[in-house]
Amino acid sequence: MTQSREDDRRGARSPSAAIVDAAFRLFAENGYDETSVDDIATAAGVSRSSFFRLFGSKEMVIFPDHDAILAAVEERLAASTQKSAILAVSDAVRVVLFHYIAEGPLARRRYRLTSTVPALRERELISGSRYQQLFRQYISAWGDGSEESERRGELMAAAVVAAHNRVLRRWLREECADPHMEIDEAMAQVNALFAPPSGTRAVVVVRTDQDLDAVAEQLRAL
Amino acid sequence: MTQSREDDRRGARSPSAAIVDAAFRLFAENGYDETSVDDIATAAGVSRSSFFRLFGSKEMVIFPDHDAILAAVEERLAASTQKSAILAVSDAVRVVLFHYIAEGPLARRRYRLTSTVPALRERELISGSRYQQLFRQYISAWGDGSEESERRGELMAAAVVAAHNRVLRRWLREECADPHMEIDEAMAQVNALFAPPSGTRAVVVVRTDQDLDAVAEQLRAL
Repeated sequence: MTQSREDDRRGARSPSAAIVDAAFRLFAENGYDETSVDDIATAAGVSRSSFFRLFGSKEMVIFPDHDAILAAVEERLAASTQKSAILAVSDAVRVVLFHYIAEGPLARRRYRLTSTVPALRERELISGSRYQQLFRQYISAWGDGSEESERRGELMAAAVVAAHNRVLRRWLREECADPHMEIDEAMAQVNALFAPPSGTRAVVVVRTDQDLDAVAEQLRAL
Repeated sequence: MTQSREDDRRGARSPSAAIVDAAFRLFAENGYDETSVDDIATAAGVSRSSFFRLFGSKEMVIFPDHDAILAAVEERLAASTQKSAILAVSDAVRVVLFHYIAEGPLARRRYRLTSTVPALRERELISGSRYQQLFRQYISAWGDGSEESERRGELMAAAVVAAHNRVLRRWLREECADPHMEIDEAMAQVNALFAPPSGTRAVVVVRTDQDLDAVAEQLRAL
């Protein structure tokens, strides 16, 4: 329970840490929909009004930072143009990932909870779709407005969020030793799929009966 | 209200059509969570037990076919191997899309409802994630088990579902005259992104100072 370590040193948990502890325990024991704000406040030894002053809503106890992260992602995307789009998307993905990594054990504790309480897993899926929608909106705006370009925005946004989610999930499960390296690799894979051809780079598909070494030889001569 | 046309010809709506009509109206007026099965049964003039005999749950009134479509998708994917993977994925996507298109006006009516009732939009998002999970599972199983291949499965599943959703949404909004053509184009776009290199096809990236016409000339000579 790392987030209350500081409070432990002071000899008492803060009301906010007590609320998080009580809520996580009650959601795991009784389910999300079945737990009321009153149940949480009572278990944490705080008043209902203290609860709402500190968290605003029941969902905010679990996901207090979604709106702030979403705003940070939008800020990064909005600071870009078509030219720097891939960099902006890669940066924005890292904003989200590194937020959770900075949370440390709290993020892993939340993951264990969302993995076992269906209603919380659903809240998380819905919030993931807000990121995807935001990425789609910006990537599409950087395109030429054709149906193919709009579709590309949709596909790329889906791939970006999937890449992020995979690295985050692996880190949460302690399957990934170096999330910085993994997100670099994952975003390189996404970018290799979606990178638009630039002036000095040609992507060509060749059908040939020659073996690949011979083809490579001739390509090297270009 | 096409789905009750047959009943109208018989001079009366079926209990099932009456339930759908009542539920759609109440969800739109009062919200999904705020509408009980009893409310729907009363408005439709049927008993609570008739409701459950016909629909099983409140959610099933809106999405009666999710489980059946998911099973059909899985059946198509399971009948494939790595070699025919892209075909299987393309077929499976069409299973879902053409189910909704076959529903006709009912699908559009549901779309108007899910667009305006947040809880129903969320149910749909959650069900979409089940498709994505299923595609990921099969696409990953066709890979070599490396982290890059697993990640590719994740990215491709996300792109496949995004492509499907775009075409479906355009059709539901009557922005798309020919969904058969659009899904062909969308899946071709996905496949061009993710198609693995095969024995007689080389995908090469060339950096060159020559102009593209000169490069093309030399490639044609291969």
